[in-house]
Amino acid sequence: MKENASPKPGASMVNGFDPARLGSLPERERKMIERRQTLLGSSYRLFYENPIHVSKAKGVWLYGPDGEAYLDAYNNVPSVGHCHPHVVEAISYQASQLNTHTRYLNEQILSYSERLLATFPAELDRVMYTCTGSEAVDLALRLARHYTSGTGIIITENAYHGVTAAAAEISPLLGASVPLGQHVLTVPAPDTYRANGGDVGAALAQDVAEAIGHMRRRDITPAAFIADSIFSSDGVFADPPGFLKPVVDVLKKAGVLYIADEVQPGFGRIGTNMWGFARHEVVPDIVVTGKPMGNGMPIAAAIMKSDIQECFGRDIRYFNTFGANNVSLAAASAVLDVIESENLMQNARETGDYLLAGMKSLKETFASIGDVRGSGLFLGLEFVRNQDSREPDSALALKVVSGLRDRHVLISASGLNGNVLKIRPPLPFSRENADMLLDALRDALVQINRSAGRVAGESNSKR
Amino acid sequence: MKENASPKPGASMVNGFDPARLGSLPERERKMIERRQTLLGSSYRLFYENPIHVSKAKGVWLYGPDGEAYLDAYNNVPSVGHCHPHVVEAISYQASQLNTHTRYLNEQILSYSERLLATFPAELDRVMYTCTGSEAVDLALRLARHYTSGTGIIITENAYHGVTAAAAEISPLLGASVPLGQHVLTVPAPDTYRANGGDVGAALAQDVAEAIGHMRRRDITPAAFIADSIFSSDGVFADPPGFLKPVVDVLKKAGVLYIADEVQPGFGRIGTNMWGFARHEVVPDIVVTGKPMGNGMPIAAAIMKSDIQECFGRDIRYFNTFGANNVSLAAASAVLDVIESENLMQNARETGDYLLAGMKSLKETFASIGDVRGSGLFLGLEFVRNQDSREPDSALALKVVSGLRDRHVLISASGLNGNVLKIRPPLPFSRENADMLLDALRDALVQINRSAGRVAGESNSKR
Repeated sequence: MKENASPKPGASMVNGFDPARLGSLPERERKMIERRQTLLGSSYRLFYENPIHVSKAKGVWLYGPDGEAYLDAYNNVPSVGHCHPHVVEAISYQASQLNTHTRYLNEQILSYSERLLATFPAELDRVMYTCTGSEAVDLALRLARHYTSGTGIIITENAYHGVTAAAAEISPLLGASVPLGQHVLTVPAPDTYRANGGDVGAALAQDVAEAIGHMRRRDITPAAFIADSIFSSDGVFADPPGFLKPVVDVLKKAGVLYIADEVQPGFGRIGTNMWGFARHEVVPDIVVTGKPMGNGMPIAAAIMKSDIQECFGRDIRYFNTFGANNVSLAAASAVLDVIESENLMQNARETGDYLLAGMKSLKETFASIGDVRGSGLFLGLEFVRNQDSREPDSALALKVVSGLRDRHVLISASGLNGNVLKIRPPLPFSRENADMLLDALRDALVQINRSAGRVAGESNSKR
Repeated sequence: MKENASPKPGASMVNGFDPARLGSLPERERKMIERRQTLLGSSYRLFYENPIHVSKAKGVWLYGPDGEAYLDAYNNVPSVGHCHPHVVEAISYQASQLNTHTRYLNEQILSYSERLLATFPAELDRVMYTCTGSEAVDLALRLARHYTSGTGIIITENAYHGVTAAAAEISPLLGASVPLGQHVLTVPAPDTYRANGGDVGAALAQDVAEAIGHMRRRDITPAAFIADSIFSSDGVFADPPGFLKPVVDVLKKAGVLYIADEVQPGFGRIGTNMWGFARHEVVPDIVVTGKPMGNGMPIAAAIMKSDIQECFGRDIRYFNTFGANNVSLAAASAVLDVIESENLMQNARETGDYLLAGMKSLKETFASIGDVRGSGLFLGLEFVRNQDSREPDSALALKVVSGLRDRHVLISASGLNGNVLKIRPPLPFSRENADMLLDALRDALVQINRSAGRVAGESNSKR
């Protein structure tokens, strides 16, 4: 447990465009970025050294204004594919019929809620809707604090849970300028790669138990432990399945709630299960979801045990004007249709396994690849300076992200040191798409090595 | 200034359905409400003693499942009319082309931002997008606190600013179970009706000055005063134009920011101006808007002076995944088209004036109407037990809301005592629609008086 891990500089972002490079861009894009700066200001960041200009999208492809195609291996929001015709049709039809709020009776929210809750364990039997994952996290914190009368929140070291004031307070990823909440403690993420064969689940459980003890000793009542079920911003940690069991036992014993942040892994992406927590065979007290829920339409939700909802609902009403608006609900319902009809969970597993095998094979060739991991279509590839020391190589990760972008393949990086490629494509990603990604990755690495005067594998001390 | 005005019971809501009445409803609706309770829980409230079941909507009309039509005189979200064809077309087209986030370059956000900012005074030259008004308020608080290094927030007595943890802390409307923030102080709203001819602007300025002094005496740095520019939840206070000037002078002198909450009055609704603050000829430091912005599509924004944005942006990045997604932006742009092409601001003024004149005429007939007020299509009608004592008549307001609902006209009530009818229809509301509302209002009042054994005007001691 750490109270104040050395935070990163304020506004830095992995793979963010540096405005100092503006002069090197083509005139059209330069002018657009200047307008952005004038209109939106400096909180708005663009991806890439050489930002992407997009005009259209379809399936797993984004298209630039001149028709150039980019393979999308990054965006989990257009989960069933960009502009999926079934979702577009549902949106168009619903927008022409009715788009109102939840204070009138309407069948749609009931049918969708039944369908959504059916994907959860029976104990998780209530749903409340918001527009964004941030709002869902914010609501989960309100629910947990009301239920436990506690204020303490335990998070992982490089967690990201959102942008409302309350969500930002539990998001160390945002850097030193966004202070953590006074009653927020961090624990290291379950980093199997650096655990030297140790039991990451037991270690996490012990760290969380210590954090609970630390709070109690200071008369702070712990309310909840919240974690992304695939620890995306911490560097993507999925294995071994079950590693969340010990920490959930600790929480249960201590009367502290477990909030599963499924905003990134949820809705079938991990291939083995609809939800990330299910892979670990645990049942959270509250689940939050969002991004892929409506394939880009703003809809998110908190799902919870009914006693937690009742405790809140007795005292507090909740009305989110756009939350579960009919158009977003129609999109969300169409997303479930497509996940089922196109067997997207199965595809996530199969393409994911294929892609991971390809990444493993690259690891045999390139000494700079320290680890490859993940589940389904949520994969991480970690760059290190040396496979023995496992020292993170953030600069290389960034070069690879740029190299892939130049080869029209879009991904980004994550992790405490920004040295882990985050691969998280729309779910209809095919073997062919995976091959293109793998080829581009190999090609980019070869070129980077060549520029550095090395040949593939040369610095690999182990082989 | 009040630190702790007697709060209302926790979860009460003006015009909320009481589940104890479930047995009295038709079977179809009863079953739907039972499913809602099981699926969504008790934080979700329905409007009306006898809830409305809706299936379709068009223009100023909502339709039930059997085709029954309700005149919508309440919903400001479908601002240019429910399911407006131009907005529906924009949504459908954009959903089929591209719906992504702001970390890629795209022209749409630039064009819309230029268009939106052109409706504001020149000093307000930056915009940041969120999905909901709550998120925009939450962001405005983050901006104000970062800029001033302060924590104190001053609000009106029955303010409502949203549902995130930070927004709920400045929303006394939510009742006693939602505590105000520790550094939040309330001041009475500028209630002209009860000011006995006094200067509400001077009184508000003095109250806010006292609140600032109270904070400073306790070493709390005040960050901002935030107010709904038409004080909707406080009871709808619009007149006299200019009453916000003195308080803005006080704030400027004290270095405290003024945040205008335009979520309800904005986008031309008040008829005289695009924004509520403009009616008072003041310039806020930050403006938040939301509800009517995308005619029901989730989009909201904070608009601010560039030095406030720069101070934040230097240290803090802000990324809202769905904020300014392309589909919501397309809807927002179409909304501006329709406001212009259908002269909706002019219609709001003209129909609003006509409706207000009709309400004034009803006031001559019915002693229970203490005051009618507002601007454009944001009107309030206040019920009192006695025009001399001005004692609020909340029960009557609720009966009238129900009586109108039975006559298929939808409105609700607001104000500290829930005794003020809140009339806030879609902007294409016509004279004919206004006549229907006025006739239904007269008819409902006559029937209520008759049931109470009175004749119209009988209890009017003054006439």
